[in-house]
Amino acid sequence: MRAPQFHPSASTGLPARVTIYEVGARDGLQNERTVVPAATKAEFIRRLIAAGLTTVETTSFVNPAWVPQLADAAEVLAVLGPEGTARNRPVLVPNERGLDRALASRVQAIAIFGSATETFAQRNLGRSIAESVEMFRPVVDRAKGAGLWVRAYVSMCFGDPWEGDVPIAQVVDAARRLMDLGCDELSLGDTIGVATTGQVRDLLDALDTAGMPRGQVAVHFHDTYGQALANTLAALSDGVTIVDSSAGGLGGCPYAKSATGNLATEDLVWALHGAGVQTGVDLEALVRTSAWMAGQLGRPAASRVVTALAADLDAEIKPEPPR
Amino acid sequence: MRAPQFHPSASTGLPARVTIYEVGARDGLQNERTVVPAATKAEFIRRLIAAGLTTVETTSFVNPAWVPQLADAAEVLAVLGPEGTARNRPVLVPNERGLDRALASRVQAIAIFGSATETFAQRNLGRSIAESVEMFRPVVDRAKGAGLWVRAYVSMCFGDPWEGDVPIAQVVDAARRLMDLGCDELSLGDTIGVATTGQVRDLLDALDTAGMPRGQVAVHFHDTYGQALANTLAALSDGVTIVDSSAGGLGGCPYAKSATGNLATEDLVWALHGAGVQTGVDLEALVRTSAWMAGQLGRPAASRVVTALAADLDAEIKPEPPR
Repeated sequence: MRAPQFHPSASTGLPARVTIYEVGARDGLQNERTVVPAATKAEFIRRLIAAGLTTVETTSFVNPAWVPQLADAAEVLAVLGPEGTARNRPVLVPNERGLDRALASRVQAIAIFGSATETFAQRNLGRSIAESVEMFRPVVDRAKGAGLWVRAYVSMCFGDPWEGDVPIAQVVDAARRLMDLGCDELSLGDTIGVATTGQVRDLLDALDTAGMPRGQVAVHFHDTYGQALANTLAALSDGVTIVDSSAGGLGGCPYAKSATGNLATEDLVWALHGAGVQTGVDLEALVRTSAWMAGQLGRPAASRVVTALAADLDAEIKPEPPR
Repeated sequence: MRAPQFHPSASTGLPARVTIYEVGARDGLQNERTVVPAATKAEFIRRLIAAGLTTVETTSFVNPAWVPQLADAAEVLAVLGPEGTARNRPVLVPNERGLDRALASRVQAIAIFGSATETFAQRNLGRSIAESVEMFRPVVDRAKGAGLWVRAYVSMCFGDPWEGDVPIAQVVDAARRLMDLGCDELSLGDTIGVATTGQVRDLLDALDTAGMPRGQVAVHFHDTYGQALANTLAALSDGVTIVDSSAGGLGGCPYAKSATGNLATEDLVWALHGAGVQTGVDLEALVRTSAWMAGQLGRPAASRVVTALAADLDAEIKPEPPR
């Protein structure tokens, strides 16, 4: 594999270091058609950690009837042992029943997931935004009481397939209600991938005005319209330092023909290392991990860096055609 | 098709209007395996123009033995008539023989293509950078003498597969030598798609220092590593107002399995319209054009916007899965 050549620049306006919150094992695999064996999931997570990803969301304790792909959450964590339940290995938890299961697996960090729109709250959680906040209240109370770290996702922050535009004030309100429960971190989700860069900055500015500490804010972009990396860099140039991404770009929407899902961790790392931003990630090890996982799933990785560099495994230099 | 919902923002730092230099019919089709009939190419170009793309590179008068995909250049222009040879319909021309053919087809604009590296100059043009400048000198002299508009491409501005790093001073020198011939516009090409945003700004700054008017500078990014849109937005926020892109993302490298070629025009338009930047493009008409062209080529479009919106042709609202 040809080592990437980067040209660090002082003129990027990006933070010196970015924390990648790796979602491939959860948000990625939950949206794959193939159900991956627990041992393979555990191996995937181990390899992600070995590649330098410090923060890895491991699995989900939602009702297995909703997400059969992750019905083996407890088994995956059992196979992983203490490495899978460290404080920077959150698991998704929808309610107290999920929290019970997570605590039984000895996790030290959880993530809850709310919505910025009433329609998606109803469709995804079966209740209103206000009702979902009340559902999460005892979850966060008990989790914090047990010393756990808690993240709050907010979906549909930049557009909703049923409601269309989502007013910024509505997103700020949904975010504040979840953070007021006592959460440690907020992840702003562009669930349908429609956001553009100015909109990202506008929401971040509004959260600033609302008094939300920038250090607690993460961004979570989907690449449905090809905007994920551009939006992420816009957020980083606006002071965000935590980015959600998915190894190999895992997590295509099963309802669309395209494989465009989450921002690919490798494409993000390429951009960041090229700009001299530290991530702690060994890109080559990560590419090998995602290429291996793509093989397990029986399809190519969505990440463009994985496609480009994995091809270089066999050829030191790949000539381009005249153009 | 659901109309995209955009949220224009005053905080983008982007120019109010961007000129898209559409390369799909040339740089795109020249790299496709399928050879498209001349009548189909002409129809494609007509539809691109009808969709609001004012500047469309139509074809190439390089030696047909090199690029058999575009061997029908004269025929395409004959089918198009005056619409295909307007002043904003450049054709690629490598040498005086190509210029003769272009002039016989009554074109009013040409593009020449140099290299920022000696290795690529030898491989793509069969001569050194200095020799290639001398090859282009009579081409530009005669073209300008005949009243034509002339663009100069520079390849490998951000990295070269054989030489690796390309010093900025070397890129500036190659660009200056071509512009000193009397060219009207310069297009900076990231031929292998390795650039990152800081590097883009550094090169633009160096061109500024060298006295190159920003209004003459275009950028041409490939998406091999997923960086094309991010790099383009970085250039635009640094004052560039001309962007090369390819409808549908046409132009995958035939030597790689991936379909990642040029920046997709639709993905660019999504980002620009979302930021309130005018392009003159009717996105829905463009998506329909690229979806039609993908059908002619027998494969899906690489553009993520095309994939997402073309699916909406059959479904007003596409629900996302819970996540």
